[in-house]
Amino acid sequence: MNIELPSILFSEDVQRSLREDLGRAGDLSTLATIGADQMADAAFVAREGGVVCGLVHAQKAFELIDPALKFEILMPDGSIVSPGDAVARVTGRARPILFAERTALNFACHLSGIATMTARYVSEIAHTHARMCCTRKTIPGMRTSQKYAVRCGGGWNHRFGLDDAILIKDNHIAVAGGIEAALRGANAFAGHLVKIEIEVDTLSQLDEALTHGADCILLDNFETASLIEAVQLTAGRAKLEASGGVRLSSVREIAETGVDYISSSQLTMSAETFDIGLDIAVS
Amino acid sequence: MNIELPSILFSEDVQRSLREDLGRAGDLSTLATIGADQMADAAFVAREGGVVCGLVHAQKAFELIDPALKFEILMPDGSIVSPGDAVARVTGRARPILFAERTALNFACHLSGIATMTARYVSEIAHTHARMCCTRKTIPGMRTSQKYAVRCGGGWNHRFGLDDAILIKDNHIAVAGGIEAALRGANAFAGHLVKIEIEVDTLSQLDEALTHGADCILLDNFETASLIEAVQLTAGRAKLEASGGVRLSSVREIAETGVDYISSSQLTMSAETFDIGLDIAVS
Amino acid sequence: MNIELPSILFSEDVQRSLREDLGRAGDLSTLATIGADQMADAAFVAREGGVVCGLVHAQKAFELIDPALKFEILMPDGSIVSPGDAVARVTGRARPILFAERTALNFACHLSGIATMTARYVSEIAHTHARMCCTRKTIPGMRTSQKYAVRCGGGWNHRFGLDDAILIKDNHIAVAGGIEAALRGANAFAGHLVKIEIEVDTLSQLDEALTHGADCILLDNFETASLIEAVQLTAGRAKLEASGGVRLSSVREIAETGVDYISSSQLTMSAETFDIGLDIAVS
Amino acid sequence: MNIELPSILFSEDVQRSLREDLGRAGDLSTLATIGADQMADAAFVAREGGVVCGLVHAQKAFELIDPALKFEILMPDGSIVSPGDAVARVTGRARPILFAERTALNFACHLSGIATMTARYVSEIAHTHARMCCTRKTIPGMRTSQKYAVRCGGGWNHRFGLDDAILIKDNHIAVAGGIEAALRGANAFAGHLVKIEIEVDTLSQLDEALTHGADCILLDNFETASLIEAVQLTAGRAKLEASGGVRLSSVREIAETGVDYISSSQLTMSAETFDIGLDIAVS
Amino acid sequence: MNIELPSILFSEDVQRSLREDLGRAGDLSTLATIGADQMADAAFVAREGGVVCGLVHAQKAFELIDPALKFEILMPDGSIVSPGDAVARVTGRARPILFAERTALNFACHLSGIATMTARYVSEIAHTHARMCCTRKTIPGMRTSQKYAVRCGGGWNHRFGLDDAILIKDNHIAVAGGIEAALRGANAFAGHLVKIEIEVDTLSQLDEALTHGADCILLDNFETASLIEAVQLTAGRAKLEASGGVRLSSVREIAETGVDYISSSQLTMSAETFDIGLDIAVS
Amino acid sequence: MNIELPSILFSEDVQRSLREDLGRAGDLSTLATIGADQMADAAFVAREGGVVCGLVHAQKAFELIDPALKFEILMPDGSIVSPGDAVARVTGRARPILFAERTALNFACHLSGIATMTARYVSEIAHTHARMCCTRKTIPGMRTSQKYAVRCGGGWNHRFGLDDAILIKDNHIAVAGGIEAALRGANAFAGHLVKIEIEVDTLSQLDEALTHGADCILLDNFETASLIEAVQLTAGRAKLEASGGVRLSSVREIAETGVDYISSSQLTMSAETFDIGLDIAVS
Repeated sequence: MNIELPSILFSEDVQRSLREDLGRAGDLSTLATIGADQMADAAFVAREGGVVCGLVHAQKAFELIDPALKFEILMPDGSIVSPGDAVARVTGRARPILFAERTALNFACHLSGIATMTARYVSEIAHTHARMCCTRKTIPGMRTSQKYAVRCGGGWNHRFGLDDAILIKDNHIAVAGGIEAALRGANAFAGHLVKIEIEVDTLSQLDEALTHGADCILLDNFETASLIEAVQLTAGRAKLEASGGVRLSSVREIAETGVDYISSSQLTMSAETFDIGLDIAVS
Repeated sequence: MNIELPSILFSEDVQRSLREDLGRAGDLSTLATIGADQMADAAFVAREGGVVCGLVHAQKAFELIDPALKFEILMPDGSIVSPGDAVARVTGRARPILFAERTALNFACHLSGIATMTARYVSEIAHTHARMCCTRKTIPGMRTSQKYAVRCGGGWNHRFGLDDAILIKDNHIAVAGGIEAALRGANAFAGHLVKIEIEVDTLSQLDEALTHGADCILLDNFETASLIEAVQLTAGRAKLEASGGVRLSSVREIAETGVDYISSSQLTMSAETFDIGLDIAVS
Repeated sequence: MNIELPSILFSEDVQRSLREDLGRAGDLSTLATIGADQMADAAFVAREGGVVCGLVHAQKAFELIDPALKFEILMPDGSIVSPGDAVARVTGRARPILFAERTALNFACHLSGIATMTARYVSEIAHTHARMCCTRKTIPGMRTSQKYAVRCGGGWNHRFGLDDAILIKDNHIAVAGGIEAALRGANAFAGHLVKIEIEVDTLSQLDEALTHGADCILLDNFETASLIEAVQLTAGRAKLEASGGVRLSSVREIAETGVDYISSSQLTMSAETFDIGLDIAVS
Repeated sequence: MNIELPSILFSEDVQRSLREDLGRAGDLSTLATIGADQMADAAFVAREGGVVCGLVHAQKAFELIDPALKFEILMPDGSIVSPGDAVARVTGRARPILFAERTALNFACHLSGIATMTARYVSEIAHTHARMCCTRKTIPGMRTSQKYAVRCGGGWNHRFGLDDAILIKDNHIAVAGGIEAALRGANAFAGHLVKIEIEVDTLSQLDEALTHGADCILLDNFETASLIEAVQLTAGRAKLEASGGVRLSSVREIAETGVDYISSSQLTMSAETFDIGLDIAVS
Repeated sequence: MNIELPSILFSEDVQRSLREDLGRAGDLSTLATIGADQMADAAFVAREGGVVCGLVHAQKAFELIDPALKFEILMPDGSIVSPGDAVARVTGRARPILFAERTALNFACHLSGIATMTARYVSEIAHTHARMCCTRKTIPGMRTSQKYAVRCGGGWNHRFGLDDAILIKDNHIAVAGGIEAALRGANAFAGHLVKIEIEVDTLSQLDEALTHGADCILLDNFETASLIEAVQLTAGRAKLEASGGVRLSSVREIAETGVDYISSSQLTMSAETFDIGLDIAVS
Repeated sequence: MNIELPSILFSEDVQRSLREDLGRAGDLSTLATIGADQMADAAFVAREGGVVCGLVHAQKAFELIDPALKFEILMPDGSIVSPGDAVARVTGRARPILFAERTALNFACHLSGIATMTARYVSEIAHTHARMCCTRKTIPGMRTSQKYAVRCGGGWNHRFGLDDAILIKDNHIAVAGGIEAALRGANAFAGHLVKIEIEVDTLSQLDEALTHGADCILLDNFETASLIEAVQLTAGRAKLEASGGVRLSSVREIAETGVDYISSSQLTMSAETFDIGLDIAVS
């Protein structure tokens, strides 16, 4: 996989999360019960099957709490894991391992949940050419990491923010005075490496959008039949994205209409946590 | 409700989230299609029923993007809402409203999802004296806001971090050399305003814990029958908390065993997003 | 002009700059010589002709130092100004005006210098369809504001960073094993709203790039004759960008070759400061 | 050279600059075209002659992106370089080298530009006792690094901010009610390690300033003849600084008047970028 | 001692302090007088007897200024030291040692002062079962480190902030409408791991508090005789804390009344600095 | 008084301190006992006599917690107050007043303690021309505010950090190879607005220092008789500063020797807290 997340893009998030957990006084339970010199050997073990993600975050958590800890990733982010698989291992003083345990797991469980859910969607549509995409609906502060998890799960990223492409929505169209005006505005405004997508609600809007120049057209809440019609109508003149109420149960049918992309906020806003445990052996 | 979240506890999170969305170049789509002087009147409308939360975050998002915007909360955090209810309203220049829309919604949808899920759990156990609690399993960077959402949904907060109470877990017990040793360490270490809880896996461990002084005992992954036995055995000598694999379908049965608290990471780690839309009218 | 820079994108930069100037002890000269209640009325006056920019930064500087100051922009960012024009005015207590003066001017003079230089380049090529663009060669920490200044001067922005488009450079090509391999990699990797540009050094490389799918091709250090040939060879199959050693004296000739974009680091890395003074009247 | 810039004074600037370039998604071009295990050996090569500066910043950029990279400075900051000289070298994985390349170069090119321009001014006045100084007119956020570059070029630093010395300007004099009043205020206010300088516009103001106690007097926009007269009039009773409209073409004549210091914002606000390239060899 | 302060809880404080001292230009004195290659061997020597603290902060200061320095703690935080004892040692380049000297000493001298003063109070009451506690009256920004120093001196920590326990003060009681109402509110509001303490001014208030359920009762400004009466009246039904005007001269008498805790802001707000010097030998 | 501390120099410190106190969950005690709509009127009352300081910090604390609160300074920083004087007043909702109370008081009590202690020293030496100065020995993170408090108490500030003047200490002299070498280095290195001071231990060192050009000479740990001799020997050729072991009991004798400055770390490192209380009336 050629995804690689430079740690500078998430290390402050990990640091903030460690502080959020340690508070002002640190880990009272561990200080009260475990000696400063006690060593430990701990394994991160998947308790269910899926796609693991967030081990680079876990690694950073242990590195930030104590550079003397040794952390080894056994199954890198994006790996398919089975229940019982050890995905990483950390050894060193027991105290700092426990100081950072929850932070490391919160990242890994949340991001593995996203990667795993994404992989399920991707698997449903693997026989089509459609790509499964996430959106800008992300949990505050987690966008970069969540989008990385989506890619680890085999999905694709939509815009990372308001500034890396133009996506004209219904509100923009209404205010601009229609699709033609909105697309004229967008084409006049966009820099030469900025793509333009526009959201349409009907086939006639689609027709209008095709006339006025968009790289991609988002078909919002289209019925399956309308999606099929849209694909025919478009005939390759633009890329087509289906969106709105996409669920694991419906994604296959949508993909089989021939659209190019399917996007859903479910991947980043509604993924269940993935169960990973830390098994510690005193050494 | 006497919950109140001072904005100093979350305003930096909102600011970070706005920057995450605006990136370096800002909202290209809006700049391209909407004039600088265009005014708008926008309503936040619940698309489903539940408990709303995160409107104080939404308010801060609009205040940070442009203090000239007028934001009015119509149904405060913690309100029970029906589909179609307008929960808040913002008026002013259309551009800044759109600049902050997604950030505001990401907070409100995520936190309302938690509050709504919590309310469902709470409703299941309302006829018992048990309290529904969240845990330290939270999405990184969101702990304070997620725990606020749990309270808005009628739930209770467990520890906010490693430093506001002692919770002795299995790993601590193993390293300390048993329950007695661990509790002796905890009681010797704890300051006078620090409570002590200990996690046990069996009734005999429970018995040992009761002997050595804990304010609360966490019964980890106990079967219903064992929970009932634990309540009887304890006979009020300590508070009891049931944890492990709690789901909406099982929480009632657990509560009816007579335990005092039930905790689950589901509330903060696996809540589905709650659907809120922004309906904008050009004014 | 539909450029608008939300203050959240630069207010921390202004704050950092104020602290950089005030240090730990504040403005000794002003405290020593000017009474706390002394009022003043100050005008920002252009000492030369050009395009003004950075007044929104100046405004933020005064707002951050003392919200009681009244700051009025008389000629908004992007305005063409003549020597002697008052571009903004600030009134209130003299001390805070002087505390923030240098910070406000450092932004305004630097950014007006960029806008003015950009306008000169733009004016040279106004009779062609070519667009004048800046690059990622920017002064550290100033990218957003410098790119805003380029737009205020009538220029266009290239990528804001490594993540909003793909630009394959000579080093990428060499490592990837040629243009075909590099473009195949890029097309396989890019999300659906990501454009792809590739840098070529020769006409034969251009030919190869056209075959393998790029939205835009950067002609690096091409002679004028080669640029003309490139335009003919391309025949509209991709957008063409000329780059490398572009100066005010050569830009017209380059534009007249028919390329679509011309980019130069001069705009952001080598613009001279623009002279603006603050004329203070005691009131 | 006894200049040494502790990295704590600029490492956050480098980090901010890396983030500015990597954005939220990182380096798409490199991820798309270069394998994770590809190694490289890269040389920073001066493309023109001058004084190099900012290599400590470049070093920090690579260290922050990946501590496993090996960076070696071949010609330290302040060295005089010829076109083609390799000034630094970095080896390791190709990806992180490319992730940080632009950030490293933006610092090095900008700061070398300042050092080189400073060296030209210094060379013009080397036969006199005058020192060439920079001012508080600096590009926001870059003051410490720019002033370091001036010293690397053989120049001297004026105040670093409003708080490390008193410099009474025309506005202060006007409000205070004249030179005598202003200097009385300054002498009464200044701590015992704070020097006092005052700006004068005429010889009679100079005379008044000499009477009332200033360590240094800034002669603002004086003609050459007046500078000569000022030097004679002062007769060593205070240090003299010439300022206002100083250019490379005029600095020699100014220095030969016998003033002690010459200051110009050109060094920090209008230096051209210095051309350094990164030549990468795949290893 | 099982106190251990993870460096993530104070390293930003050390960094801020280094910047506070180095300013924008760095250590002029050292650059002016000491060569870049000069090596040194420096010992931190206690100039008086007491309890040392803050060496972990000193260590971090040197690590942040230059990771190549070797810092060795000879007598760990919490050690009892005599005048002349070397408590730590740092070797390496002389310049960075001097850059960080004052920051390291400011932490160590201040925190050792607190630890030493705490030890004196603790020693006065060692024959009783009372514990000596600090309060939330701390010097801004130093709470975590100051409370660590109190523990190093043998004292105990009270609340770290407003959120880790409930402490009902006179103002709360007045507004809530009396002790009963206030305690009812607190018991209804508190999570299950939150202890409740209430402040009382008289014995009759104490009586009321005992009736309505508090874990601990703070006896504010009680005379010795009243403290004795309070202990008898309480008879173990709650923990008792004496507070208000506690001084080293009075603490023994207070402790001998039989109260469980004695708290005083003196420990953190009024401790004298402890004299530690840095003896540098050129090597 | 012409001291004025722009809030940009301390507002982040106040914000950090508020967060330090509010933690993650906020003020549990207040939420539990006081209704959201309860209004209050609170007075800051001095409980002892002295010089008040830190009210600008208190004001900022209330402004940051809730801009709707009305805060009025009744006796500005630097005022001499008697026990019982109301120095400030805040009105508005009771909850936010209590949220920020401790933070506001921690600043005001600590800084008033410094101002009051400084005033005592200043009063002892008022009949001489000597100035009482603080040093760089300050509590980490508080330098700017502590030095402001010293000035509010009538004292003077020494250096704010390592970069605003040169102070050659014994270690520098030893390494440089003597006073002459050190002063030669300093004079060669210093910019033209940088003063030079040197520390000497003996009269013969003083003599050497006078020969080689220092603006000021620090007499370290001189006996009174030696100080008198030093003043005579110097005869106005440099300013003289006495330092080392200065106490309130000895400062008068030192000042009467005729030295120009007396510096002591006591002012900032060992000042006792000043007692201010907040009297709240429910309104």
